[in-house]
Amino acid sequence: MRVGVLGTGMVGQTIGTKLVDLGHEVTMGSRTAGNEKAADWAAGAGEGAREGSFADAAAHGELVFNCTAGTASLDALRAAGEEELRGKVLVDVANPLDFSKGMPPTLSVVNDDSLGEQIQSEFPETRVVKALNTVNAAVMVNPVAGSSIFVCGEDAAAKEQVAGLLQDFGWRAEAIVDLGGIDAARATEMYLPLWLRLMGALGTPNFNIAIVR
Amino acid sequence: MRVGVLGTGMVGQTIGTKLVDLGHEVTMGSRTAGNEKAADWAAGAGEGAREGSFADAAAHGELVFNCTAGTASLDALRAAGEEELRGKVLVDVANPLDFSKGMPPTLSVVNDDSLGEQIQSEFPETRVVKALNTVNAAVMVNPVAGSSIFVCGEDAAAKEQVAGLLQDFGWRAEAIVDLGGIDAARATEMYLPLWLRLMGALGTPNFNIAIVR
Repeated sequence: MRVGVLGTGMVGQTIGTKLVDLGHEVTMGSRTAGNEKAADWAAGAGEGAREGSFADAAAHGELVFNCTAGTASLDALRAAGEEELRGKVLVDVANPLDFSKGMPPTLSVVNDDSLGEQIQSEFPETRVVKALNTVNAAVMVNPVAGSSIFVCGEDAAAKEQVAGLLQDFGWRAEAIVDLGGIDAARATEMYLPLWLRLMGALGTPNFNIAIVR
Repeated sequence: MRVGVLGTGMVGQTIGTKLVDLGHEVTMGSRTAGNEKAADWAAGAGEGAREGSFADAAAHGELVFNCTAGTASLDALRAAGEEELRGKVLVDVANPLDFSKGMPPTLSVVNDDSLGEQIQSEFPETRVVKALNTVNAAVMVNPVAGSSIFVCGEDAAAKEQVAGLLQDFGWRAEAIVDLGGIDAARATEMYLPLWLRLMGALGTPNFNIAIVR
């Protein structure tokens, strides 16, 4: 499959590399084609890895991952272009964490709205699935055994496709919890403050939560 | 021990009953002494169960549980009285869920503040420990095996005392995660939207999360 990965940070690189390893053709997008981090990644990630602008990556992908910083995601998606994203599944991995006022970060959108909803609202013909934003990049593609991962979105078929991809990443089908519509993005984004505190208490970002009954 | 339980709802009744069963002397407090729910509870909960006003319950308790609705907690604590709460450990179990705008509820304080912090700030000589607010009343006193429970607050000795009480409730010492100062109440309160979504997805409030590494 052709996949666009928007964002050149740890999350974009980790997901991009995993997708290449799984045999997908991946274009990593950044604000301007030729971005140094993206070029380094493309050179090292193996056959099937390319880089370009946000619009290049979105145009390339049958499916697109938003791995940009949450507070920059809407701008990045506007640069990618409504046309290039139309009808496609967009996996929104970002969290709207605002580090500008120091630590711990706050959420730039919260409570009665979320980044996932803002994206779906601004790109109504794109099928947004919020997923993977509750774990560290390393855990996204190397799941902690027995732990849970959440998906939400308006399009059932899109969620199924993403669930299939998550299983390719190593998540067991039983680990994947469908929380419903895209407004559930509020719930998974608002979990981030707890995730950050747990990272501090545990001394590692390599953990996850499991639902226990 | 003498314990005050502020609030006559499911949480107050469940915790009150558990404390009585453990041999403590419990006064359940409500806005006015003689509250019907509190009187029914006191009549049924066994020896050691009494009821009264918020101030009666706070005065009675060496340790006090805030089990009132989060949006009413500050008023309830003002009625209990700064004097009656001075120097005491206050276990804040409440969540500031605002149901007035329909479902799902939003948080009336969120992101850069929390109910736990507001209480600690308004009652600086009370030793506030946020705990148990991430699970249903039934789970508070009947822990899901292997799952995790969080405490936070400024006073280490108070957190230790609450951790001991949690163990009396059935939580294993390894299940209790100290998240740090009272500002971590933001994290556990902001988990509530995810908890509510999970309750919907699982079809039961009797679950919890486990930290997995």
